[in-house]
Amino acid sequence: MSETPQGHHVVIVGAGFGGLEAIRRLKGSGARITVIDRRNHHLFQPLLYQVATATLATSEIAWPIRHLFANRPDVTTILGEVVGVDPDRHVVKLEDGSEISYDTLVLATGARHAYFGHDEWEEVAPGLKSLEDAVKLRRRILLAFEWAERETDPARREALLTFVIIGGGPTGVEMAGTIAELAHVTLKDDYRRIDPRKARIVLIEAGPRLLPAFPEDLSDYAAKALRSLGVEVMLGEAVSSCDLKGVVYDGKHLAAATLVWAAGVAASPAAQWVGAPADRAGRVIVEQDLTVPGHPDIFVIGDTALSKAPDGSPVPGIAPAAKQQGTHVADTIRARLKGDTKPRPFRYKHAGNLATIGKRLAVIDFGWTKLRGALAWWIWGIAHIFFLIGVRNRLSVALNWLWIHTTGQRSALLITQGRSATSSKAKRSRADNAP
Amino acid sequence: MSETPQGHHVVIVGAGFGGLEAIRRLKGSGARITVIDRRNHHLFQPLLYQVATATLATSEIAWPIRHLFANRPDVTTILGEVVGVDPDRHVVKLEDGSEISYDTLVLATGARHAYFGHDEWEEVAPGLKSLEDAVKLRRRILLAFEWAERETDPARREALLTFVIIGGGPTGVEMAGTIAELAHVTLKDDYRRIDPRKARIVLIEAGPRLLPAFPEDLSDYAAKALRSLGVEVMLGEAVSSCDLKGVVYDGKHLAAATLVWAAGVAASPAAQWVGAPADRAGRVIVEQDLTVPGHPDIFVIGDTALSKAPDGSPVPGIAPAAKQQGTHVADTIRARLKGDTKPRPFRYKHAGNLATIGKRLAVIDFGWTKLRGALAWWIWGIAHIFFLIGVRNRLSVALNWLWIHTTGQRSALLITQGRSATSSKAKRSRADNAP
Repeated sequence: MSETPQGHHVVIVGAGFGGLEAIRRLKGSGARITVIDRRNHHLFQPLLYQVATATLATSEIAWPIRHLFANRPDVTTILGEVVGVDPDRHVVKLEDGSEISYDTLVLATGARHAYFGHDEWEEVAPGLKSLEDAVKLRRRILLAFEWAERETDPARREALLTFVIIGGGPTGVEMAGTIAELAHVTLKDDYRRIDPRKARIVLIEAGPRLLPAFPEDLSDYAAKALRSLGVEVMLGEAVSSCDLKGVVYDGKHLAAATLVWAAGVAASPAAQWVGAPADRAGRVIVEQDLTVPGHPDIFVIGDTALSKAPDGSPVPGIAPAAKQQGTHVADTIRARLKGDTKPRPFRYKHAGNLATIGKRLAVIDFGWTKLRGALAWWIWGIAHIFFLIGVRNRLSVALNWLWIHTTGQRSALLITQGRSATSSKAKRSRADNAP
Repeated sequence: MSETPQGHHVVIVGAGFGGLEAIRRLKGSGARITVIDRRNHHLFQPLLYQVATATLATSEIAWPIRHLFANRPDVTTILGEVVGVDPDRHVVKLEDGSEISYDTLVLATGARHAYFGHDEWEEVAPGLKSLEDAVKLRRRILLAFEWAERETDPARREALLTFVIIGGGPTGVEMAGTIAELAHVTLKDDYRRIDPRKARIVLIEAGPRLLPAFPEDLSDYAAKALRSLGVEVMLGEAVSSCDLKGVVYDGKHLAAATLVWAAGVAASPAAQWVGAPADRAGRVIVEQDLTVPGHPDIFVIGDTALSKAPDGSPVPGIAPAAKQQGTHVADTIRARLKGDTKPRPFRYKHAGNLATIGKRLAVIDFGWTKLRGALAWWIWGIAHIFFLIGVRNRLSVALNWLWIHTTGQRSALLITQGRSATSSKAKRSRADNAP
């Protein structure tokens, strides 16, 4: 970390949607840019559930960060983990003790799933935020069918064929619908002793309806559509316990081997790094111009920030919002470099909410109009292919979806990673037999 | 494992090229077939090095076994690990203590890399036999560049940019050529502090020439072609030590952070399971009809078996040989089911040897003619796409290759799995600093 040429130095922590957009918009600004991420790839999170459900391959929704900026000599990429910030000395601290100094700092470090004080649930009910999460979930879902095929005890077999998704937001709805499609369509002829069509997919939501960010009639439509796909939708039921045997909700025990957590997120610890005020989810409460109170040279954007839309409502934690914030930060930095230092308030423009339900069904709320069903699904699919990076990945994802929707076959039904399948089984069996 | 309908029961252990071919050829034979594999996928091993070098995605060269036989009600697939065989009781023992009885048993369990009594080298110099191996190697290769970008000590930076491949057979030649292409072409513009074109790729072979199964002039051509790609080829140099700091060969120490083992394989423990005679590499010395001496109901095929070609030379450990053996076993079982129990000696037909060297270069030895260079590469590519399973994967691999060869861009440059990048770095740094 020694060579530091002249020029204003912008350090961007996190290469999600917000961070990438800021880098793009700073092209030609004259600033030197360093982007730091603890992973080597940008992840297209809206399609992550398709990796978890064996639809897409990991390389179709992830891009090496430094490769995206190979033709930008002003951008330096560092694979590293930020562990702190010293705002007085203007340095970012990395995990190996080294420091990187900045003139302007942009924190875009995103969020992780939160377990509301029950961190021990993470091991049994993993969430879905990274490629590793997705591959782990894919592995657990596919292994559950494998173990069921070998299981002779009917009760245990039934537990292995029960999949519980906790949380009825977009991720929960997408996971439930796609697991149902996987079990009831893709895998239906693959087993000899079990019938995957009899697998139970249970979606549990503590609130009174699915997709709370959508209008009520779209929530009702989503619940009806999921039920027609064979998903059991439980509303107004809070989960009080998760373990290797299943879940307890509303006093009832449901035996299930596979749990998926889609119930809540918490921001990264950026607020602690800079000593900024934060809300209960850990998000930095930023000024109107997205800076940290008292630190006009530190911006916080994306899921790490709590900012307000013009109507006073919080800006939602979705990709378009993070991108708009990245654009705003870049524009502010460009203006400052030209000597214009007047505060520039961020104005969020909400384009709409989209969620897919299952094969060829989706809901869209544009505000001025609402869509549901097959047309919404086509718009959803085209929009997502458009926002993927690069011609190659667009081709590859389009080919994959075309294939799945015409043949019903999935190409990524692979169990990889971690301990061997059989040693996991042994471990789980022991756990199942424990008192 | 309770339901056992009537009919001759063939148990096949291992779903590699030999096992799959036997299952295919037994279609309509009237036999019930159970295939047991400890992984859920068949792997197209000849292209595994392309996953390790970020060219192909894992799902492009692997297929779920049970999905391949979804339309074969006579085939039951078990994800499980065989730990023993009782030939007297005609049962196969699984890792969880359960047993599966057979009328005919086919052992096709393949081989793993062997370290000639130095198993401790496996951790620092991984081999390439499974998808996990390939993803681990990809991770190490890409991380070495990342760490080099952050390293300030010139000697350590040089070690991080030195890649040593041990073993000059087809896998070693393919890995060396492709890592050279990755460093010198794909990654050349991605870094700011290091120049990937200066990375050293060193191929060390203990014997006097590369590709010992090929004619000498093709070996010489391969060495020349690799050197033109920037690979340092060391012949007649045996490696005497591997550790986190690098390798020692012929008394010389070479500092290198990334080692790849391509120097030797050993058969699976099938010989011990059945108490059969084995050669030094652990291969079962089978009868002319591929059965185990004294056990006419147990066949051993593929890399697990040592059988002889008509000219007395050992049948090579390549995919076409395993497939021919699978066909022979299936034909023998079909004949026996019709009452024809006379011994049927296996006659191996050698079609040729192929190896790629790097971008658009390959060598082929058909016996009756030899090819080298670009034409050989085209034949190699077309043959491999032809032997992939399914239209979708053929399209996908062809698209990927086309993309790489026209744009130079690779799509699978992902660092995933295992410990986080940064914790690995910390661990390795500590190891590097150890006395």
